[in-house]
Parts: sequence; C-alpha cells; structure tokens
Amino acid sequence: MATLIHDDFLLGTKQARELYHRYAKPEPIFDYHCHLPPELIARNHEFADLAELWLGGDHYKWRAMRTNGVAERFVTGDGTPREKFQAWAETVPHTLRNPLYHWTHLELKRYFGISELLDGNSAERIWRKANARLPKLRVHELLNASDVAVVCTTDDPADSLEHHEAIRANPGKLKARVYPAFRPDKALGVRNPAAFNAWVEKLAGAARQGGGIRSFDDLLGALKRRHDDFHAAGARVSDHGLETALSEPCTHAQAQAVFNAARRGRVVSAEDAARYGSYLMLEFGRWDAARGWTKQLHLGALRSTNARLLAKLGPDTGFDSIGDLPQAAALARYLNALDATDQLPRTIIYNVNPADNYVFGTMIGNFQDGSIPGKIQFGSGWWFVDQKEGMEWQINALSNLGLLSRFIGMITDSRSFVSYPRHEYFRRTLCNLIGADMARGEVPNDFKLVGPMVRNICFTNARNYFGLELAPAYAKRK
Amino acid sequence: MATLIHDDFLLGTKQARELYHRYAKPEPIFDYHCHLPPELIARNHEFADLAELWLGGDHYKWRAMRTNGVAERFVTGDGTPREKFQAWAETVPHTLRNPLYHWTHLELKRYFGISELLDGNSAERIWRKANARLPKLRVHELLNASDVAVVCTTDDPADSLEHHEAIRANPGKLKARVYPAFRPDKALGVRNPAAFNAWVEKLAGAARQGGGIRSFDDLLGALKRRHDDFHAAGARVSDHGLETALSEPCTHAQAQAVFNAARRGRVVSAEDAARYGSYLMLEFGRWDAARGWTKQLHLGALRSTNARLLAKLGPDTGFDSIGDLPQAAALARYLNALDATDQLPRTIIYNVNPADNYVFGTMIGNFQDGSIPGKIQFGSGWWFVDQKEGMEWQINALSNLGLLSRFIGMITDSRSFVSYPRHEYFRRTLCNLIGADMARGEVPNDFKLVGPMVRNICFTNARNYFGLELAPAYAKRK
Amino acid sequence: MATLIHDDFLLGTKQARELYHRYAKPEPIFDYHCHLPPELIARNHEFADLAELWLGGDHYKWRAMRTNGVAERFVTGDGTPREKFQAWAETVPHTLRNPLYHWTHLELKRYFGISELLDGNSAERIWRKANARLPKLRVHELLNASDVAVVCTTDDPADSLEHHEAIRANPGKLKARVYPAFRPDKALGVRNPAAFNAWVEKLAGAARQGGGIRSFDDLLGALKRRHDDFHAAGARVSDHGLETALSEPCTHAQAQAVFNAARRGRVVSAEDAARYGSYLMLEFGRWDAARGWTKQLHLGALRSTNARLLAKLGPDTGFDSIGDLPQAAALARYLNALDATDQLPRTIIYNVNPADNYVFGTMIGNFQDGSIPGKIQFGSGWWFVDQKEGMEWQINALSNLGLLSRFIGMITDSRSFVSYPRHEYFRRTLCNLIGADMARGEVPNDFKLVGPMVRNICFTNARNYFGLELAPAYAKRK
Repeated sequence: MATLIHDDFLLGTKQARELYHRYAKPEPIFDYHCHLPPELIARNHEFADLAELWLGGDHYKWRAMRTNGVAERFVTGDGTPREKFQAWAETVPHTLRNPLYHWTHLELKRYFGISELLDGNSAERIWRKANARLPKLRVHELLNASDVAVVCTTDDPADSLEHHEAIRANPGKLKARVYPAFRPDKALGVRNPAAFNAWVEKLAGAARQGGGIRSFDDLLGALKRRHDDFHAAGARVSDHGLETALSEPCTHAQAQAVFNAARRGRVVSAEDAARYGSYLMLEFGRWDAARGWTKQLHLGALRSTNARLLAKLGPDTGFDSIGDLPQAAALARYLNALDATDQLPRTIIYNVNPADNYVFGTMIGNFQDGSIPGKIQFGSGWWFVDQKEGMEWQINALSNLGLLSRFIGMITDSRSFVSYPRHEYFRRTLCNLIGADMARGEVPNDFKLVGPMVRNICFTNARNYFGLELAPAYAKRK
Repeated sequence: MATLIHDDFLLGTKQARELYHRYAKPEPIFDYHCHLPPELIARNHEFADLAELWLGGDHYKWRAMRTNGVAERFVTGDGTPREKFQAWAETVPHTLRNPLYHWTHLELKRYFGISELLDGNSAERIWRKANARLPKLRVHELLNASDVAVVCTTDDPADSLEHHEAIRANPGKLKARVYPAFRPDKALGVRNPAAFNAWVEKLAGAARQGGGIRSFDDLLGALKRRHDDFHAAGARVSDHGLETALSEPCTHAQAQAVFNAARRGRVVSAEDAARYGSYLMLEFGRWDAARGWTKQLHLGALRSTNARLLAKLGPDTGFDSIGDLPQAAALARYLNALDATDQLPRTIIYNVNPADNYVFGTMIGNFQDGSIPGKIQFGSGWWFVDQKEGMEWQINALSNLGLLSRFIGMITDSRSFVSYPRHEYFRRTLCNLIGADMARGEVPNDFKLVGPMVRNICFTNARNYFGLELAPAYAKRK
Repeated sequence: MATLIHDDFLLGTKQARELYHRYAKPEPIFDYHCHLPPELIARNHEFADLAELWLGGDHYKWRAMRTNGVAERFVTGDGTPREKFQAWAETVPHTLRNPLYHWTHLELKRYFGISELLDGNSAERIWRKANARLPKLRVHELLNASDVAVVCTTDDPADSLEHHEAIRANPGKLKARVYPAFRPDKALGVRNPAAFNAWVEKLAGAARQGGGIRSFDDLLGALKRRHDDFHAAGARVSDHGLETALSEPCTHAQAQAVFNAARRGRVVSAEDAARYGSYLMLEFGRWDAARGWTKQLHLGALRSTNARLLAKLGPDTGFDSIGDLPQAAALARYLNALDATDQLPRTIIYNVNPADNYVFGTMIGNFQDGSIPGKIQFGSGWWFVDQKEGMEWQINALSNLGLLSRFIGMITDSRSFVSYPRHEYFRRTLCNLIGADMARGEVPNDFKLVGPMVRNICFTNARNYFGLELAPAYAKRK
C-alpha cells in the first residue's frame, strides 16, 4: 500500500533529519496569528464528523473541488456531509503536487493515525475511522495534542471578547493561552456606507459609548478604548489586511470630513477613503508603539473577484487571489511616517505575491534600528504562498537579505483546528533547507551553531518578541 | 565525440524515466495553438534546404545571431541560404544553456537522425545530410512523423480560410485534423486608422458583406459571421494577444463613436481604444461561450520596441520582449464581467512574465465553478518562458495553486514544422519534475496513481476539453 | 574545529571543480564598476585595523548589525574600533545563510589566511592576527594580491580627477590600471535646488568654465567638457543610478526652462524633472556612442527610505531597498530613442529587483543589432542580488533569454578593498551551475567547448568589450 507520511518526510539529508528530530520537533507551537473561532474554544466544541472538521470554512479545499468539476452543491451547498466528504475524497488524488495532498495526509496521520491515502475508494473506511475518534478530539484536546502554547485569534474591535473572557475564566485542561488580536479593518470601510454605519453602531456598544459615535473623535475614542480593552485581555498584537500600505497625507479635518460623509450615507471616493485610512493607520501604529504591541500587515491580496459567487456565498469562500499592485513606495512611506517620531512598533509584514519577496525582504532592513533584534519581520509565507515552494522562497529571501536567525517563524493563519501540522510542515521544510546547506558545505556542519537557530525560529524567538504571557511551563522552557 | 540527445535526456531519476517512456512518450500530439501557415499544409510543401526549414521566420534564432554579432545580411538579409546556415551554425556553440541549443540538437536527431553537435566545422556535413532527406520530409510527413492529431492554426477573421478548405478537401495521408483559430486582434487596431480601414475592407469581403462595412453594427455582424464560418470549418478556439486584459466600461454608443472616428481616419486616444476594445472583447467572449468554444488570452508582451529595425524588417522579427504592466485587476474584471451573466467560456490564460505566474495561477481559481474540470486554464509556458526553467515554474505554480492533473498541457506556438520535439521537451521536463518528487517521497511512488495523470496532461485532458473532432484512431484512443 | 572555506567550496560536481580550477581561477580580475575611493589608491593607504578596513562604509554589515539589535553607537557611532569589531563578530553567527557569512570567511581566508569562524569568542584572536598583517596589506598590495587588471571607480563630473592623475603619475608597483567612470547623477538633481546649485558651481570649477554656468547650454558644455576630460584620463564607461529609465519627450526649450527654474531656487515638479532628466540622458547617450564608451544603467532601487536615520547619518548608510516600479516601457523607449539615430552606445543594464530579470533579459535582445557581440548586456546581480541565489537567477535568465557566452561577467560594485573574493564567489557559482548542467547531461561533457566560455566570462569578454587600456601583461594574455 502506497503511503506518504513517514518520520523523515521532506527531510532529504542526514543533517536535515538531525535538525528536525532533535531541535525542531520538540518545540511547542506559538500560533501568533490565526482565524480560529474563540467561541468553539470557549465551549470546547466537539465536531460531528470529518466533514464539519475539515470542509466547513476551508476555501482551499473548495477551490480544488470546483476546479475538479464538483458542483457547488457538494462544495458549500445542501449536499449531506457524507456526500461532500465523498466529493472531497474523490478530488484528493487530483491534488497531487498541491499542498492539499500533503496537508490532507499529514492531518489524517497526526490526529487520526491514518496512513492510508484518501481517495474515492478509501473514503468510507477513513470516514468511519476518523469519525469514531472525534469524541476524544474536542477542541482542547486537538490544541493540546499539538502542544500549542499560544493562540492569537483575529478579532474586530466591535467584538465583545466574551468568548475570550469565557476561555480565561474556564480554561479547563487547555494548555494554550488564548488572546485576541486587534483587527480594525472595518473602521476603514467608508466606501460601503451601509455596512460601515452598522459596524459603527456595533462598535459604540462594544466600547460602552453611551451616546453613540457621533463624530470622528468619538470613533477614535471608541477604537482606542477597545485597544485598551484588548490590552487588558492580554492582547499584544494588531493586524490589518490591505491591498497596499496606506500612506497618503491626511489632516484630522480631512479624515473627519470623510467620516462624516460616510456617516451620512454618501459614497466616498477611492482617494478620500485612502487618505482617511492612512490617517487611521498612523493612529493605530502609534497606539501599538505606545503599548509595546506588534503590528501585522497583510498586504497584496486581490479580494472578492467573482461577483456572481460572492453574491451567492459571501466573502472568504474562495474567490480571492494574488494582486500585483506596487508595494514598495507606500510601505516605505508608512513605516517612515511612524519612525519619524520614533513611534514605529514592532511590525510583521506578510506578502502574498512571491514576486515581491525581495522588495519586502529588503524593506524590513530599512527600519531595523538596533533597538530590538528582528524588530521588523518579514512574515512567513502567507495564504497561497504557505506551501513548500513558497515557504522556501520566503526563507531564502529572508536569509539572503536579512537575518534568518532572528525570524519569529510560522503561524497557521487558519480557520481549522487541525491545521497545526502546518507547523510540522514548515519545520521540516526549514530543516530540509538548512540541512542541505550543511551537506553541501555552505553552512558549517556544526549542530551547536545551527541547532539553536532552528530551535529559536520554531519557538523561542517568537516568545521573546511578543511579550505575551504564557503558561509557566512554556514561559520557563529553555 | 560529444553528443547531447539520448533516450534519457533530461530524465534524472528512474521514476522520471518510467513515467516518460511508459506514459508520456506514446501519446499523440494535440497542438491546439500554433502559427503554422495553412497554405504550406494545403500544398504539402517541400523545403528547399535546411535554411528555409529552420531559419525562415524563426526570430528566436535571429535574436541569438544578432547577439552573437552576426550582421543582418546573414540573419534576414540577402545572404545565401548556405551563408545564413553557416552564420547560424557558428552561433550554435554560443547558445550553450539557451533552449536553442537543446532544440537544435533535438530537431536534428528526431527529423534527420543526426547526433553530431552543430558548429562551424560540422555545418557542411550536417547541411548535406539534412538537405538530402528533405524530399522525404514534406509537410505531411513531418506532421505524421510527430504523431500530430490536431493542429489549430491562428487566423484572422478576414482570412478566406481557403487553405483550410483545401486541406479538408484533400488531406492526402495527413493524419492530423487541421482547424483555424479565430484571432480578431486587428478588429481592435483603431489607433492605426490606415491599417484598420484596409483590414475592415478585407473583412467585408471575407464576410460576404455586399454593401461593405458602413457601421459598427456592420462590423459586429461581419465578425460574427466569420465566427460562424470558423465554427462551420471545425474551429472551437479563439485567441487574443493583448498587453493586458481589456475591461473598461463601454456602451454600444461609445464603441460606435470610436469605430466611426477610426473609419474617418481620425486618431483615437489610448483610453478610447481601450474602451472600444473592451466592448469587443466582451462580445467575443459571449460568442465563444454560446458556441462552447475555448478562449485563449495571450497577455503581457511588449511588442515592436525597436523602431529602426521594425521599419526595416516588419513585425515579428525579434524585437518583442516581456512587459511588466499590472495584470490582475483588469483580468479579474474581464472574467467577472462574462461570468456575471454566466457567459464565461472555457478560457486559457497565457503569461509571458514569469514574475506573474502566481497571479495567474491564483486568478484561474477565482472562476472555476465546478461546471467543467479545469474550466479556466493557466496556459503552458509561453514564448520566452517556453523553456525548461520557464516550464518548470509554470508547472510548479499550477501544481501549488491549482490542479496539475487537470492541465491541458503543451502547445508549440510555433511557425516551424519541425518544432514538435518541443512536446517531447515538455514531457521530459514534466516527467523529470514528477519523477523527482516520487524519488524524494513527496508524491507516492505509485505509477498507477501518477502515470495516468501524466498521460492525461500529454493528450487526454486536451481531447476532452476542446470538443474538436479528431480522426477516429485518435478519438477512440484510450 | 568547524570551518567553511576550502578548495572546492560551492563546487558540487567534478565538472564544476575542473571548470573552476582550470579555467576560472587563473583569470585576472576586470573590475569595470566599483566605488573604491581613488584617493586611497593614490596614497596607497595603510589601514589602521580590521574595523577600518571592514566596517567603515560597509552598509551591508551595518544593516545586519542593526537587525541583530546592535545599538547605532557600535554600528556607525562613537564606539571604539575594537568595540565595533566585537559587535560585528557577535553578529556574524547570526548571519548564517546570508552572503555576509560567506564573504566574511572568504575574506579572512584569502587576505589573512584565517580559517577560524568569526564569533564573539574568536574575535580577539582574529583581531590581533589580522591587524598584524595590515602593514603588509596596503591598498596596492591588496589589489595586486587579487590580480586586479582594471579598476573603474565611480566619479562625479564635478570631481577634479586629481587622485586619478596622481595614480597615473605614480603607480608604484600597482598592476591594475585605474580609470574614472562618468556618473553625472547630480546633473539631474533639480528637485533639490540648494544641492543642485552648489553642485553646478563645483562643476563650473572642474570644467574650467570661467564665467560660471549661467545657462542650460553652459551646463551642457561643461558636462561635455568633463566627458572629454574623462576620456583623456582613459575613461570609457559612464554610469547612472535611476529609479527607472527616463524617456519623456522634452525639447531643448523645456529642459532649459526647468534648469532656469532650479537655478533660481524654485521647486521643480516631478514631471518636469523627469522631462529634464530625459533630455540629459539622451545627450549623455549620444556622447557615449560618439566616443565608443559603454553606458551603465543601474535601475530600480528605492533610496533613502528612512528619514530619521538619513538625517542623522546621511545617504548610503543602509536605508535603501528594492523598488517595484514598472521598468519595461520606459527602458524600451530610452534605448529606442538612441537607436533610432544609430546612437545607441554599448549598454549594460543592472537590475536590483530579481522579479524583473526576465524583463531585462528579454529587453537586451531587442537592441542587439549584430554590430558587436553582446552589445547590450544584462549586468551581473546588483546590490541585494549580488549573492549566490541572485547571481544564479541572473545567470539563468541571461542563459535562457540571451547568450551567456557573451556575458562580460562580474564586478565588485564595492567600497571595500577586500571585496575581490566576490569575483571568486561569482566564479565558483558560475562553474557550479554549468558543471551541474554537464553532470546532468544538459550541457555536453566537453571541456574544450565549455572551458573557454567560462574563461571568457571571467575576463576576456570584458577586455574585448570595453576598449580600456591594460598593462601589457594583461593586454596580451591569451
């Protein structure tokens, strides 16, 4: 029987194997950016079946199924869970060379002990075997099984954080500390006044703004209050999803005028929205700097390209792709504007277009000021680039243009509780690259020199960087 | 004596060799896009010498010769065929690591059984030996020798298709079915009114438009009639060469006004031309969708950069290169505009700038709707990218971002009757990549799983995708 | 004790080793572009210590130190040389996989015979050992030790060239011929009138323009006079650093108006500055063509991004990065404008953004006219791309899209007298690539075919290309 996953999967040299098994594998997981729903963590959710666990919300799989000619009914429609699973299982052999093929079998192996390759024929066996284990694989068990030390979810300032409170109040046996991350993208959404105004109302509630948000200053105040609330909840990370960095000049009066127009339901021009967004982004940056937070910038995606299916299925359903707008000048201006007053926080820049890796890899060097090792980070391969080829490119770009040794490493960026093997995948890829360098003599064949670097990238660098509070066992770990 | 081509050329693992020899090599060739002149097929042309066969029209070789310091006289000028061949032969050793070096020796081997490396010294021997075989290597024999099942040429709507009719009427021993492809680029050429108006007159004749083309609606009618004529001639493919996708908003009245201006010899602005072109491109897309055709978009080339030599030698003589305009947003808008009314045909998008591979590789996923496996295709490495490195990048991008298993594979895109070994070159490259994955354990070492995928990419996927009629032996082939 | 540098460093196949040791290594160095200070050559400078030799002016190292968390005091500040060296030594182990790690140990080995790896512990030993050798490693000895045949420095037209005269008058035992290169970037600096006007005054002096530069024609005259002076001093190379090629239409009257505005201290718009610059760049191109010079274009950098540290430390201190502006259309227009009147000089185009390699690699082919082998060159990996991965990409792009055999090879582009091992690094990388092709059967396993190509790329092609006068031993070398 052909299988795929074994102890030395992806590890092509004996140096790679030594690095992985001795230095990388034992490290806990520091997941400083993901999209896990805190509600499911709070109630330690039990999954009904493999379809719920695997196919709900996973737009990577949806795209593959559509490409394979699977009707929408069995992708996101009213097909039964078993039918959808069958459609997925029959798609799997068609994903050869796609990361889904590796992820699928890695997840089956790590969480369910299943080595058989998934296809239309093995689907029923695997469905039964995996489903039988789900009652013992509730959310906390899944996280503990992966040795997760930290989870930072992604949260709107208008969210109540009630689930985060519930987790803190009642962690059960969960070993991971779970924190929100401050993602105020909707504060920039003035080009869609209806959605914007609904969000402003919700924010007013979350921020306990008695009289509502009547002015731009009210908005700033409410957002700042939520930033403080997030801080009190342990958050130390913010996050932004943007096509490009925003760095247009904008006065307070100009931003206020744009806000007022949107509040009155008027359509705002793209230029005005960019100016207004630039104003807010500077504010957010200063708050992060003042609090010692880390800012994450996710740049370059082209979202919601397919109007017909967007109308039917909503956002984040698999119709986003990689954009090709220029990034360098606006990003430099944004970072410079914060740095000019010494208010540039720790910043992680994620790039979705690998053609820009060298732009990003050199940009971070422009704003390293010696204050903190690796202060400005080039984030791990994001979204479509989060696969072996893409991670290798990011690691190589960072290595050649900056200091790999100061890299804070992998995140899941995932909506799934069984995507932690992506850390294993990253670590194997990292060790494989460095091990090959050692085997070729391009890195000294000295594990005392190289091993700790691997260990740091897997866990320690991130722990030192963020200042997030960990459970004692993780905080004290050497 | 040093040689280059042998049975296992480019095949670095035993898995690659097994995949190539058992699954790839036996497949026929489905050449769904090329620039072969139908006239030469119709009269089963016999080539006078190796210079006519090899150097006439081959701007890849011309560029290499100019770079090597060869005077234009021996490139496209009035040098004798033997002199030009000598200049080329002396250039060949200077093309080491360029695909021309591989193609040259692959073609000498496959068509003429010549293993000797070409250079200034071997030129005379090879000239004589190859020329001696040409009488038995007329066009039909060349196509049959390469086991070509389909040839889609590239044809202007104003072409009469007489040569295609002649081929159909008198195929002789030709095994391939030969079809035109509808390439209406000149319909967009309003910025050059003189050439545009001459073309419109020619189109009126081809479309049997008695009173001539007097209005924009006449133009649309004539083009549609030719689309129908092409369909009747067996065509199922259209093709467009554009710097970027065109997707500007444009009403019928606006398009009409631009057309009228060009017809009166007025110079049209770039913006107006883009709007007018956008209007036509939507029309063309709808016609293709209604007929079940496949649309090909060739995007990103920067053409005719060298005015001095363009004036002397005309277009397509080696002065085109790779552009770097943004592609993503306009392409998404174009595909979305057709998809919005469910009139998006099967589409193949070709990319000439490999930095955009990930943009294109993710873009196709946005418009896969489950109706047809691999409905939107990322076309094989095009033009400057049609070489080992470029094909590997395209295959890897497609693999990582979509489903390689649904890929319709290679085309020649060539003006030469001896360029079919490029399919062999593609297949060896494909098998070498996948075989290496098997050897490394990244793809299961299971030929029953992997072999059919290779076979499908070589032939079967294309056969299933296009709906072109084949000779029975090819149509029934398993 | 772990070491790094040995005879076969980077050479992965026996073919690579044969190519390097037999064909590449014996060749002299032809450094046709660098930033060495002619003053230090003229007075055969002796370095006080390893910090002066290694850390002064090396912004690559500065960036790495800042990224590693080293305070500016120990980077460019008032720390002692020994303290700065310690900070660098402690940073070195953190540069694993960065080219600095290889360069550092290659330089220690080649100039000082030191094999020990540098880190915080070995710093004191290495400091003493290297410093002890410095009295015997003055500038001329460093250049001779590297077998440097030519050095082209980078010089402003307003420079007096006095140091170049001094070198010529008193070369001592220096084997290299040292020439200035004409880099008139400041002539384009009209957007900063204060700096521009100061520079114009200086130029007037250098050009012996008695009445000063009062008009645009005076400026052109003074620049042309310096071009002539540089020619008389042996220069055959010009150089330009630009974000993109400049090719806007501009009349003499328009250029004059921009010049006059800047002279009066008015701020000039970006568009006007681009037009004015375009006018000058055409003039410069014609001068180069008339004199048989070679023009170098360094395109694509985004400079001086960090205002706070720029204000403190000045330009070229490590705050520049890779830009992502479109390059193709403007570059084609510029080359075409010169070519249209047959006044396109030999041109070398350097690219700092590797995503554009294929754009540049095809662009050069558009303007090869058969007059000179390799007339238009795609320059070696520049700045951030001058490392193994970046050089491999450039070599592969050039190979696939043009003729590697006509490549004029490596330069140092360096401010350091101990950066000549970068030629060794380039040569090992080149031989490793080609040797691997031979081992895989993609290039014939024939050293008589391949060896001379390697030798030509290392030295002979450049010697034939530039027409610079060499010392007899280098000029006659076979």
